[in-house]
Amino acid sequence: MSDSIKIFDTTLRDGTQGEGISLSVEDKLKIAQKLDELGVHYIEGGWPGSNGKDIEFFNRVQELNLKHAKVTAFGSTRRKNTRAEDDVNLNTLVESGVKVATIFGKSWDFHVHEAIQTTLEENLEMIFDSVRFLKNKGLEVIYDGEHFFDGYKNNAEYALQTIRKAEAAGADWIVLCDTNGGSMPEEVTSIVSEVKKHISVPLGIHAHNDCELAVANSLAAVRAGARQVQGTINGYGERCGNVNLCSVIPNLQLKLNYSCVSEAQLESLSSVARYVGEIANISMPMNQPYVGSAAFAHKGGIHVSAILKHASTYEHIIPEKVGNKQRVLVSELAGQSNLVSKAAELGLNFDQQDGRSREIISRIKNLEHEGYQFEGADASLELLMREAAGDSNEPFVLESFKIFVEKSADRPVSSEAFVKVNVKGQTMYTAAEGDGPVNALDNALRKALIPFYPDLLAMHLSDYKVRVLDDKGATASKVRVLIESRNFESEWNTVGVSSNIIEASWFALVDSFRYALIGKSSLENTTSDTRPVGLINH
Amino acid sequence: MSDSIKIFDTTLRDGTQGEGISLSVEDKLKIAQKLDELGVHYIEGGWPGSNGKDIEFFNRVQELNLKHAKVTAFGSTRRKNTRAEDDVNLNTLVESGVKVATIFGKSWDFHVHEAIQTTLEENLEMIFDSVRFLKNKGLEVIYDGEHFFDGYKNNAEYALQTIRKAEAAGADWIVLCDTNGGSMPEEVTSIVSEVKKHISVPLGIHAHNDCELAVANSLAAVRAGARQVQGTINGYGERCGNVNLCSVIPNLQLKLNYSCVSEAQLESLSSVARYVGEIANISMPMNQPYVGSAAFAHKGGIHVSAILKHASTYEHIIPEKVGNKQRVLVSELAGQSNLVSKAAELGLNFDQQDGRSREIISRIKNLEHEGYQFEGADASLELLMREAAGDSNEPFVLESFKIFVEKSADRPVSSEAFVKVNVKGQTMYTAAEGDGPVNALDNALRKALIPFYPDLLAMHLSDYKVRVLDDKGATASKVRVLIESRNFESEWNTVGVSSNIIEASWFALVDSFRYALIGKSSLENTTSDTRPVGLINH
Repeated sequence: MSDSIKIFDTTLRDGTQGEGISLSVEDKLKIAQKLDELGVHYIEGGWPGSNGKDIEFFNRVQELNLKHAKVTAFGSTRRKNTRAEDDVNLNTLVESGVKVATIFGKSWDFHVHEAIQTTLEENLEMIFDSVRFLKNKGLEVIYDGEHFFDGYKNNAEYALQTIRKAEAAGADWIVLCDTNGGSMPEEVTSIVSEVKKHISVPLGIHAHNDCELAVANSLAAVRAGARQVQGTINGYGERCGNVNLCSVIPNLQLKLNYSCVSEAQLESLSSVARYVGEIANISMPMNQPYVGSAAFAHKGGIHVSAILKHASTYEHIIPEKVGNKQRVLVSELAGQSNLVSKAAELGLNFDQQDGRSREIISRIKNLEHEGYQFEGADASLELLMREAAGDSNEPFVLESFKIFVEKSADRPVSSEAFVKVNVKGQTMYTAAEGDGPVNALDNALRKALIPFYPDLLAMHLSDYKVRVLDDKGATASKVRVLIESRNFESEWNTVGVSSNIIEASWFALVDSFRYALIGKSSLENTTSDTRPVGLINH
Repeated sequence: MSDSIKIFDTTLRDGTQGEGISLSVEDKLKIAQKLDELGVHYIEGGWPGSNGKDIEFFNRVQELNLKHAKVTAFGSTRRKNTRAEDDVNLNTLVESGVKVATIFGKSWDFHVHEAIQTTLEENLEMIFDSVRFLKNKGLEVIYDGEHFFDGYKNNAEYALQTIRKAEAAGADWIVLCDTNGGSMPEEVTSIVSEVKKHISVPLGIHAHNDCELAVANSLAAVRAGARQVQGTINGYGERCGNVNLCSVIPNLQLKLNYSCVSEAQLESLSSVARYVGEIANISMPMNQPYVGSAAFAHKGGIHVSAILKHASTYEHIIPEKVGNKQRVLVSELAGQSNLVSKAAELGLNFDQQDGRSREIISRIKNLEHEGYQFEGADASLELLMREAAGDSNEPFVLESFKIFVEKSADRPVSSEAFVKVNVKGQTMYTAAEGDGPVNALDNALRKALIPFYPDLLAMHLSDYKVRVLDDKGATASKVRVLIESRNFESEWNTVGVSSNIIEASWFALVDSFRYALIGKSSLENTTSDTRPVGLINH
């Protein structure tokens, strides 16, 4: 039995069936490139027979010259009572130019009757004809038995017949699908073991997460003999999603000693997960196993003091193996050890004895009480700690700002900002327009500061998040704004809280500029680049 | 072997160790009430020895008169080289007034050496003394063997000794903890089975989700003989979280025929999950198994056409059993069947033949291309469909609006809005202040509309979300604003997209008012209530 497992990624096909996910052809090409670098073996790019956008993808993906992955197109068996040769969907698969076709057919007698409404016998012929047609065209054929486990539980003999037909027609892989995600791991173990007695081509598993068991079910199938795992990055997909490859791959490789990708490829896992999340425009759950920003984040005081002695006391693997890293959170649950460790991480000299760390803990607690949260705003926290450490050389001071927004009927809206700041003893009064009030503020503040600090040209705002804080009985609900900023070398996050979204944005914006000028990044970055600024427009 | 499983909820203790979670005493009391209604058997309320807030909780929870759940307080074994009688933490547990104490001790020899830095023998005494002390005070004692699985793998004999000590001292439960979340289900199965041979008090399982296997590990432990599952609502907790009880409970009850809560209690599961998410102020992942809003949402055209024939073709359980429901999504992947089904859900008469449904699909696709998303904005979708159905009796028309925001140095920021609208042929020009620009707009628009539509007094904005859309090479990044509104009978969601946050908010705000006046809710609600309006202030 080989211990090498093939990874079949269907982020671009099944993943896009998830709620809130929509990928352009450009998006798909970018993701395919990353998947290839990660070392997956198959990339399912789409369903050319059902979507024109997917046809364009299959044309353009050939120009990428992927090094490792085989690209595959998805489709179904032929329609009932037709010939495979005449089936538009099957012909589109051939015309898409892929060398691997993935087609699904029905394993569950109930679906044959209810969904496609034909006879059990005709369904067997549909499977056989379709696989043979594609094999005759010279393609590698992966056959997905849809609802295999439900079908097997309802009528084992018929479910087995369907995949025996695919095997007889020459399928290269038989993939057993838990399409509705309702199976338990022990069912998967026993059914895959049973199927292995009847089928000699290699088996695969395609699991969905409706019982929060997709990872367990995929591992169970592999242990019972499956040699291909189909899934998606971050577990995107219909309903509760497909199995999450970002958990399956490290579990197989680091825990169960199977081999999927190289060690270096595995170290890119966290960055691939975040990249795909960015492209799909879906926030990554911070607590996502292995690759989430909180996967190795420690908050409880006891945990923190133990990991400072020895990381493996509360970490099940070395985070760097999946390209992640340890973080220590500062919060009301934390003791001084968190803060001292944070200070060391920042290169600040914080003496636990002199009462300053107590003072700053109490200041952080007060701000958290007002709605601040520093777990996602390291730069604002660093600025606070620098102030507390007496390192407060303010690069500018606000005198006033005004915002004016106007809209008439159907004409475009206009936004203007007026900023008065004192920079190095000089009052700067600037005005600027913007694509929105925050962008206008950003532009006006830049105008005031750049004559003094030209390095700011290299910096731009790259993300902007607004969170409405539940008022929970307080008199006014507050908003928390998080701003992410970047220059070429680094990115940093700042936070502002107010019951006024413009004021909250202003606080976070000011911290972003202050950090660029007096934070850690200013020490690392002294180039004065001229990358265009003002990407963000609110 | 009994088939009844006790559910131990630690949302209020271990759950609060998750990044971004912070609960006030009020929050904790509200959640405890809901947990009791859900039918959990134990509610771990906090760690009174480490947090003053938790002491207040234990005082006040007694006034709730919980019907079902036992409240338990958490603590650790005594400190090394002291007497249990003198240990402040243990005494605080007794003083907290609970009838059940949960204490954890070290099972892993490595932790005894590295984390608490004492001898293996002293650790055994710490466990024995602490359990006996609490038993002598008349408490039920749940003993948590921290890192039990890692300890067992490293030194099985010692790990077993630690829990034998707890048993000898009279512990009522021995709970095996996979504290770092690194264990595989088959390890859990074999270790729990082995432990069962040596321990006669009932066993429990406490799993973490670092390998995305916490649910599988908890089920494996139960199948191997554990009779208590510790976990949290929505899987909150340190790093990747504790096991998610919202998945464990239905899996045990609907899939494996164990009994945890009553059928009626299980039907409250989705609402409890959402309630706790609201109180914790954490967005529920829409794809969360069983209880997420997408758990039974169908997007692919093939799936939609099949579930319209028979829901169980793509649903593994009846959603109502866990208090959830089926939804059909409208998106570019969808065929006409989605839209026709949506129209039926809304009570609109949509004829698939007359081309109108094609026209509206194309309009929806264009708006989605601009960044609109209707999956979370049913009310805006309904307004579009009503327009397309010729049902467009506009209650008001915008002529212009202006926004003015000003801040001077450290003085509070001021926000004003000026709105000119035409209502029933009359031009209304109003001005209002607000706690933020959107609140000012809301107030000014109300001033203009309420003289004509007094029912609007009953409506208020209840949530406001902003999403920055990745610009992905476009010239200007856009923002999408989602607004949730409520009156006494219902809530509805609307959406607006623009590169200007004020304009995007305006679009969503206008749809919210339009829906209140011409949407489905206006048909249901003709009371003119005087609940105070303007809860939200941006």
